[in-house]
Amino acid sequence: MAKNPDTFENNDGELLFEVLSTEFMDAIEQAILGEDAQTIKEKLLPLDPPDLALLLEQLNADDRQFIINAIRKDFNYDTLIELSDHVQSEVVEYLGIDTLAKHLAELDSDDAFTVIDELPGDQQSEILTKISASQRASYETILSYPEGSAARLMQQEFVAVPSFWKVADVLKFIQKSKVMPDAFYEVYVVDPKHHVVGVIPNSFLLRNQGTSSIRNIMKEDFKSIPANLDQAEVAYLFRHYDLISAPVLDESGRVIGMITSDDVVDVIDEEAEKNILQMAGVSETNYNAPFYVTSSQRIGWLVVTLINALLGAFVIECFHETIEQKGSLAAFMTIVAAMGGANAMQVIAVTMRACSGRLIHSSNMWRPVMKEALVGLMNALVFSLITTLIVLFWFKDPSIAYILPLALVFNMVWASLGGVLLTLAIEKMGFDPAVSAGPLVTATTDVLGFASFLGLATWIL
Amino acid sequence: MAKNPDTFENNDGELLFEVLSTEFMDAIEQAILGEDAQTIKEKLLPLDPPDLALLLEQLNADDRQFIINAIRKDFNYDTLIELSDHVQSEVVEYLGIDTLAKHLAELDSDDAFTVIDELPGDQQSEILTKISASQRASYETILSYPEGSAARLMQQEFVAVPSFWKVADVLKFIQKSKVMPDAFYEVYVVDPKHHVVGVIPNSFLLRNQGTSSIRNIMKEDFKSIPANLDQAEVAYLFRHYDLISAPVLDESGRVIGMITSDDVVDVIDEEAEKNILQMAGVSETNYNAPFYVTSSQRIGWLVVTLINALLGAFVIECFHETIEQKGSLAAFMTIVAAMGGANAMQVIAVTMRACSGRLIHSSNMWRPVMKEALVGLMNALVFSLITTLIVLFWFKDPSIAYILPLALVFNMVWASLGGVLLTLAIEKMGFDPAVSAGPLVTATTDVLGFASFLGLATWIL
Repeated sequence: MAKNPDTFENNDGELLFEVLSTEFMDAIEQAILGEDAQTIKEKLLPLDPPDLALLLEQLNADDRQFIINAIRKDFNYDTLIELSDHVQSEVVEYLGIDTLAKHLAELDSDDAFTVIDELPGDQQSEILTKISASQRASYETILSYPEGSAARLMQQEFVAVPSFWKVADVLKFIQKSKVMPDAFYEVYVVDPKHHVVGVIPNSFLLRNQGTSSIRNIMKEDFKSIPANLDQAEVAYLFRHYDLISAPVLDESGRVIGMITSDDVVDVIDEEAEKNILQMAGVSETNYNAPFYVTSSQRIGWLVVTLINALLGAFVIECFHETIEQKGSLAAFMTIVAAMGGANAMQVIAVTMRACSGRLIHSSNMWRPVMKEALVGLMNALVFSLITTLIVLFWFKDPSIAYILPLALVFNMVWASLGGVLLTLAIEKMGFDPAVSAGPLVTATTDVLGFASFLGLATWIL
Repeated sequence: MAKNPDTFENNDGELLFEVLSTEFMDAIEQAILGEDAQTIKEKLLPLDPPDLALLLEQLNADDRQFIINAIRKDFNYDTLIELSDHVQSEVVEYLGIDTLAKHLAELDSDDAFTVIDELPGDQQSEILTKISASQRASYETILSYPEGSAARLMQQEFVAVPSFWKVADVLKFIQKSKVMPDAFYEVYVVDPKHHVVGVIPNSFLLRNQGTSSIRNIMKEDFKSIPANLDQAEVAYLFRHYDLISAPVLDESGRVIGMITSDDVVDVIDEEAEKNILQMAGVSETNYNAPFYVTSSQRIGWLVVTLINALLGAFVIECFHETIEQKGSLAAFMTIVAAMGGANAMQVIAVTMRACSGRLIHSSNMWRPVMKEALVGLMNALVFSLITTLIVLFWFKDPSIAYILPLALVFNMVWASLGGVLLTLAIEKMGFDPAVSAGPLVTATTDVLGFASFLGLATWIL
């Protein structure tokens, strides 16, 4: 790792890993300030493309432009794949569309596709007029498959051989062929119709003698990916079957590409990011967007929150006379709503993950429902006891000490049941519970929490 | 994929993927009910280990026992790796410790380690007395590294060759050697001290003639993993550099193992699951735990929620006289708190993800802070306007229409600033913001939301 500015710092016995060390970043900032293009070249040209991309993402637009100008002659075009849309389009502008068109052939077809696909409309139509006819055809083939499909992840370069060959024939073919993928981990054995009949991991080729027949050493039990399969499903298959690479088949079963696990790692990370952000109500993906863009992207969720809060407020307003008799009710009603909401979010998160791990099947669906109801009841009883004691000994208010536990049990058991049933229902309907389950269930726990507590108070007090 | 019960259903034009189809599961349930061991064997023995594991996870304990008894003679021990702790220990009991000890040698060292490591204490100490001395030594080597470190992910089988060999020597070595990893994607070139001086992807070996010198074809620029590195960092390296496999080095720089990307995919998934669950306040990982275990695992977070809610309730209680004058205040204070909380969660999620993508560096830390402050202010102004209009036209209450927007701007700007600063601070201190940032910030948005709104109301009304 000598050439890279990686550092392993031992900080209080803990091992830390930094791709770009603080000293390295400081040296770059200094060089930019001093307009020292020579140092920039010396420091940045040995970087791996992902490191250069990360550095470009961390800087502002002016600094990025200075850097691209300094290294444009030896710029490694693999860097573009690692950039976010926003920064990539900026860097392409600094490099020039003509230069990009010339260098695009250096990339694997999936990477070239990604670069073109992420460009904004005007840059995209310009580059498409400037690349070769075969590159355009390859781009259009992939574009004919829906966004987020397996075909969009695959590279069109792969190694396919007939089953009557011997290992020595395959080696000769690999050594002679001019169009080879940059990296490949298995060779596909195909029949004359280009249907895959077997897969040979590279290690099998290394292990066997040149005279071994392909038919005898190939794995006939392998996984293949339909070109239309959603990328989240592709990720599940790779994870579930521990795949390193897999052939991609079109509708007629012909092999048209290859997906490798490094592509899938990116998908898993993207899907995880999407889930985490969605649970917090964020749909943005571009960290470098200007503040007014980010602001407008967050408003949707805040509107949902406002509607939920207004519903709650409306319910409270119905009981304003009860509250005017005893102001403390306003304090305790928020506890009922908060506990229900927290309980609901736990249940939703657990159910969502069980669904994505395929642990819930239509035949065993009643099990999580029963279990969550029991968990909800048990925790509701525990917290009813705790809150009753707190109200009695701290706030010394016996009247509220009757109402609070009743409302709490009702709301927490509802939160558990509502959380699991709604998540399962949304999942069953083919929607994503990460977006909708949270606000839907917590709206009910707020409304029911306020209504049950204030309703009981109006009736009993 | 002929042997597997995979189905691709086209449901309203959408492609669905099911590892275990409903028909398949129904057939299994029928066979269990009819105690038909023959059908169980016919249906389950051709399954891939991950599919068999998934099926075992979906059933209850009695059904699992029946199945294991039916297939015990031909049971594929790779299935154990894919099971959750709870189910694994159960299956090991049905199989018998002696049988397991005999078959453990069939697994790669990392898989054997995982199986032993996940067993409960008594089963673990029993199995350790029954495996071979070399297996025990291998187990203890890995155990000497901390939990969650790279060493715990690696397998101890890998291919290492000296740099003075030719390609033909490597092939002969691979073909003759008896201890070979099940799968490998690159060969490590080592010096006499077992330091890695280069890496040769298998595809390089296939591409080059037998007479090519290893020294000339090996990649000298490669990534290696320190055995102590945290698994989340390992996952970051694989993702960042698109690695398929990497050598693991001990403290003296000797290669002691190999990590492959299928191991890392599991880590990425685990870390994503942990983050999602933590954000919802769940620390449990075992979906199949009994309800009282699950219940007790969720109580911690509910206690945190209760403490937060009590803090809020305490603040509200301070203003109970103001509320008794105007009960509607109780309705509107919840809006201020809810909007602040939602805003804070958005900011925390975005900042967390930017940190884990290493987009925030100490030199550019002021940028997200400034940006979030602006986003918060802008959205606060938007929602102040909306809520003012709602209060004026719907609730027709001009006095609240003055107070609500002021409290909202204050609380939402605080939520933005507090969210980003606290997340960065927690990250900087080396803790995980997924656990603590949410409750810490929303506690302040609740308290400040109630206090600012009710305080202003007491002062103005």
